Amino acid sequence: MSLFDTHKPMLDQAIDALHARTFYAAFPETPAPAIYGESADSEGKEKFQQALGKKFGELLQPNPTQWIGQEESPYTQDALGVSYPAFTPDVLTTRAAAAFNAWRKVSVNDRAGVLLESLARIKTRFFEIAYATMHTTGQGYMMAFQASGPHAADRALEAIAAGYEELQRFPSRAVWDKPMGKFNIQLNKEWRAVPKGISVVIGCSTFPTWNSVTGIYASLMTGNPVIVKPHPGAILPIAIFVAEIQRVLQENNIDPNSCQLAVDTVENPIAKTLAEHPLVKLVDFTGNSVFGSYLETLPGKTVFTEKTGVNSVILDSVDDADKVAANLAFSVNLYSGQMCTAPQNFYIPESGIQTPAGTVSFDAFAQKLADNINGLIDNPKAGPYVLGAVQNKKTCERVTEAENIDGKVWLKSRAFENPMFKNARVATPVVVEVDASKKEVFGKELFGPIVLLIKTKNTDQSIALAQEMALQHGAISCGAYTTSETVREKIADEMSLAATPVSFNLTGGIYMNQHAAFSDFHVTGGNPAGNASFTNPDYVTKRFTWVGHREPVKTAQAS
Amino acid sequence: MSLFDTHKPMLDQAIDALHARTFYAAFPETPAPAIYGESADSEGKEKFQQALGKKFGELLQPNPTQWIGQEESPYTQDALGVSYPAFTPDVLTTRAAAAFNAWRKVSVNDRAGVLLESLARIKTRFFEIAYATMHTTGQGYMMAFQASGPHAADRALEAIAAGYEELQRFPSRAVWDKPMGKFNIQLNKEWRAVPKGISVVIGCSTFPTWNSVTGIYASLMTGNPVIVKPHPGAILPIAIFVAEIQRVLQENNIDPNSCQLAVDTVENPIAKTLAEHPLVKLVDFTGNSVFGSYLETLPGKTVFTEKTGVNSVILDSVDDADKVAANLAFSVNLYSGQMCTAPQNFYIPESGIQTPAGTVSFDAFAQKLADNINGLIDNPKAGPYVLGAVQNKKTCERVTEAENIDGKVWLKSRAFENPMFKNARVATPVVVEVDASKKEVFGKELFGPIVLLIKTKNTDQSIALAQEMALQHGAISCGAYTTSETVREKIADEMSLAATPVSFNLTGGIYMNQHAAFSDFHVTGGNPAGNASFTNPDYVTKRFTWVGHREPVKTAQAS
Repeated sequence: MSLFDTHKPMLDQAIDALHARTFYAAFPETPAPAIYGESADSEGKEKFQQALGKKFGELLQPNPTQWIGQEESPYTQDALGVSYPAFTPDVLTTRAAAAFNAWRKVSVNDRAGVLLESLARIKTRFFEIAYATMHTTGQGYMMAFQASGPHAADRALEAIAAGYEELQRFPSRAVWDKPMGKFNIQLNKEWRAVPKGISVVIGCSTFPTWNSVTGIYASLMTGNPVIVKPHPGAILPIAIFVAEIQRVLQENNIDPNSCQLAVDTVENPIAKTLAEHPLVKLVDFTGNSVFGSYLETLPGKTVFTEKTGVNSVILDSVDDADKVAANLAFSVNLYSGQMCTAPQNFYIPESGIQTPAGTVSFDAFAQKLADNINGLIDNPKAGPYVLGAVQNKKTCERVTEAENIDGKVWLKSRAFENPMFKNARVATPVVVEVDASKKEVFGKELFGPIVLLIKTKNTDQSIALAQEMALQHGAISCGAYTTSETVREKIADEMSLAATPVSFNLTGGIYMNQHAAFSDFHVTGGNPAGNASFTNPDYVTKRFTWVGHREPVKTAQAS
Repeated sequence: MSLFDTHKPMLDQAIDALHARTFYAAFPETPAPAIYGESADSEGKEKFQQALGKKFGELLQPNPTQWIGQEESPYTQDALGVSYPAFTPDVLTTRAAAAFNAWRKVSVNDRAGVLLESLARIKTRFFEIAYATMHTTGQGYMMAFQASGPHAADRALEAIAAGYEELQRFPSRAVWDKPMGKFNIQLNKEWRAVPKGISVVIGCSTFPTWNSVTGIYASLMTGNPVIVKPHPGAILPIAIFVAEIQRVLQENNIDPNSCQLAVDTVENPIAKTLAEHPLVKLVDFTGNSVFGSYLETLPGKTVFTEKTGVNSVILDSVDDADKVAANLAFSVNLYSGQMCTAPQNFYIPESGIQTPAGTVSFDAFAQKLADNINGLIDNPKAGPYVLGAVQNKKTCERVTEAENIDGKVWLKSRAFENPMFKNARVATPVVVEVDASKKEVFGKELFGPIVLLIKTKNTDQSIALAQEMALQHGAISCGAYTTSETVREKIADEMSLAATPVSFNLTGGIYMNQHAAFSDFHVTGGNPAGNASFTNPDYVTKRFTWVGHREPVKTAQAS
């Protein structure tokens, strides 16, 4: 049974799910022994620990120039000591170019089979990847498992499914038979989905697999060789993905250089050189807006970006202000505000928030939010695990600076002790009140656990500001609370025009930060937060070109 | 019966045809009385003649700044004297912005109904459009009828069909129901296909409707208002399209400014100002590479271009050299080489072309081609009508200059008399032999009836040069002649990598210049000849953004 046949049922389900957009997951998100095995967690932890201080020897990329690595755990603030084989951009692109001519000729079904098999292999390493993710990104254990393991694998599957579907949307052959009156003109036509060329996927430090696998698998599925360039601070999780992909490629007699890892250091970055290389035609990038926007203008390249954004919460009217405050407090604490979907700007009318029990004033809601944030932090069974640790020192500095913003500080950031990691780099949210006139303060992304409570004249101004911020600075998510159908539609419409998805009236165990594979398009591509969306059709169709050839039907010609 | 219901059968057929890619045409290409009516031709001619020297009064765009127009017939070299209402870019964009908010809220079905109805109205004006096209572009009558009438309408229908299909590819609503163990999280989700904003379609002088209607209808179908900016030399044909669209819009109580005509003059062009306007989000452009490439880099815009290219013919081996020479001679003469698909560079091995009857030497084939070109020109029943007239004086100058290229001139351009238009601006093809080393000569588009016969070492060099030209300078079509399966696949593969469709071994009444709606993707988007392809899925999906909103299911929340 071919790899394709083995995995075809999952592929078919995934394609169906893309269009149904109801709940679907191929990889269970619960790290339960009943699902993954009794010893899966301990074995994964053990494997991670054994990797520390050593060369990562799994890659099938011979003759490195040197071995490098500078990852550090936000939980221990110690170096991981893992080193990876490093290559010059010329070696990487030369090897990719050589691999390209074979990979592009592997049939669509065989490509899908190999890629789906790689996910099955990676599934056996979810726990190891989870620990690697914790100790590079600072994510809590549960998020690290889910985001880097099953959720990433589902996003990868989604990209494979979308790619597979788009590659089938036009026939590979047809006879074009045109009646011309006394005779017909008959042409044999064929269409080839021609991959664009070498693909470079540039990762970020906070979601090293989730934000990279979509580009990797979308490019590979459509026949392009991939060079994976992780952030130097978070290599190990994606290195495991690449190693497993390479292993399956080799087992199937395909050049492992079809998917290469390209490591660099903060001091000697290679992303720009790779992206600018003439043979590189596709670039996927997650990271800062300055570099992302530069990449988008590179002539002759197809570029997919997820950059920064300013996410808003619009508070108009609610059924239960306490439930709302609790929900938002979780969103704010989750991974210390280091998600691209975390809310930053909270727009609250100066007249307060309407509820069935009467108006909750601006101040009263601010206090509720601060109390709920504190309550979660101080819950020893939840706080440390929800907050996790801070990936980058600069984020902590930004949090400290936020306390100097001109406005009432409702909550100061503070230290807390992670019971498992005494030396963890931590920062709890800072909550500051800002006047609606101070766009210079709230009109930019303040990455990290920074909450700005913006006092507006009314909900109309809240909506206008949220839309303006999204249009000017980008937005990936938006939360909105209203009990009015009219206000709801206004928010839905105005934020749609700013290409920003809105989560309405979330309470309980579902949060605006979460984007589910096969249902939520992540980033829309329609505002400055990024030009790509996974996984919409563009996300894969832009990676190949339909080229049609034609020739007269021979029998007709001879007659 | 709604307009949508009336036209739905055609829409369904068109969507099927897009995927079958066998022959399909909704609008008959033959200007036969049996199809279009006994008096259709004479009435169309009469209407065209009545329009001359007058204001074009059909547009529903009030209060112009002035009336302008500088069209001239290449057949008479006289001004048409038609003037059109002119508006400042600010007025045009302000009106488009106002129309946008209504047009985007018209349902997808109603938008499709209005647009399909407009094509039905335009069908009644095909002959008038044909004469308007002849006397602005210089096309022969048959081409003018087909390209600007039925073929353009089919391309428009193709864009409507592709847009309609893509808008349906994801559900507008779904319930996301995630099992969480003891309970389920249920979200009502909705997805909106949000149009990007004002669309500007910039036309060219040679195919004023065929190259513009795809962008116009793709943008309108996906909810974007359109500003149609024709080339100042070829306005009337597309003005009739716009007038009919406006009429149907108004009849259905929709702001006619959803589709505006924006005329300018050679001296005071407005295309750049329009494209750069902050409210303009979509730009379609057909024309020169310098301006097209500039447009492609405009930040925050989605730009669709068809620019220039260098089209090749690769001659390796043939069954019948005379039939091949006859076919290529027609391709070269057709509209005096002013098609974007016309061949320019003919690569012939120095050892000649293999045939079953022995080798045809380079010189022998060159002579055959020259003879066939002459034969067609000198056929009084065909030549003048196939060649048509030359749109732009500069093309004639370029033809004259080509005779000074360093190499044997196999055929000089010459005057000939068009029996119907004594003052027609005409130019027959010039054929010059060029050495394969002289890339500075053949490595650029020489627009017009200019044929370069390039003597190569062998077919491998021919293929390499054709690929290199396509990759570096763009290509929209390629002709190839070979009786070897191996050579055929090499050409098919190498030209695919340069994103260039190849027509193999065409003889008889089918030519490499022709691209059929619903079957041939026109321009692939994969080389410098243009970044867009009609009509692939990108061509419509890039005109809108999928935005998803979500909210907990109310009953579940209350329970």
